[in-house]
Amino acid sequence: MSYYEKHVFFCTNQRSGGKTCCANSGSIEMRAYAKKRIKELGIAGAGRVRINSAGCMDRCEEGPVIVVYPEGVWYTYEDEADIDEIIEKHLLKGQVVEELMI
Amino acid sequence: MSYYEKHVFFCTNQRSGGKTCCANSGSIEMRAYAKKRIKELGIAGAGRVRINSAGCMDRCEEGPVIVVYPEGVWYTYEDEADIDEIIEKHLLKGQVVEELMI
Repeated sequence: MSYYEKHVFFCTNQRSGGKTCCANSGSIEMRAYAKKRIKELGIAGAGRVRINSAGCMDRCEEGPVIVVYPEGVWYTYEDEADIDEIIEKHLLKGQVVEELMI
Repeated sequence: MSYYEKHVFFCTNQRSGGKTCCANSGSIEMRAYAKKRIKELGIAGAGRVRINSAGCMDRCEEGPVIVVYPEGVWYTYEDEADIDEIIEKHLLKGQVVEELMI
């Protein structure tokens, strides 16, 4: 079994020169929100869920992006409602949120 | 299939106050070395290998740590020789390097 049942990586990379990047699309704030929510839900920690920041995952134009492992499912998101949906469906119930997949 | 066949995350987190952390154990340099090596080997990119930096993955005391997804195999390492072994055995041949596993 994986050390984390769901290991979620938010790209929080900041690119220079006005290039498209996840950090300019609110990824730092959305990652903080996700981290807070899984703590509130009591599902944070070893054996459960980890919300990580990550450097550039090289899918900038499709971003902001996250990837959920071990499944390797990639999502984009716009706001807290999208993050809530990923948490409630994917992280809690193991259901892929198809409309947010990239 | 995963977007990356092997998605490797190096914790490059720097903790304050002299606490044990991956960045103080050379993780930034070792991540750069791994990135350079997979580029030289021609295995970098979509469908192949991605070497990512990540924030704290909360296994500080066992570090420096990396995790390879989608397998969810965790390693520690000391030097370039360990990184080479992980690249040559795990990333190229799909073999787990048991002596470096945590």
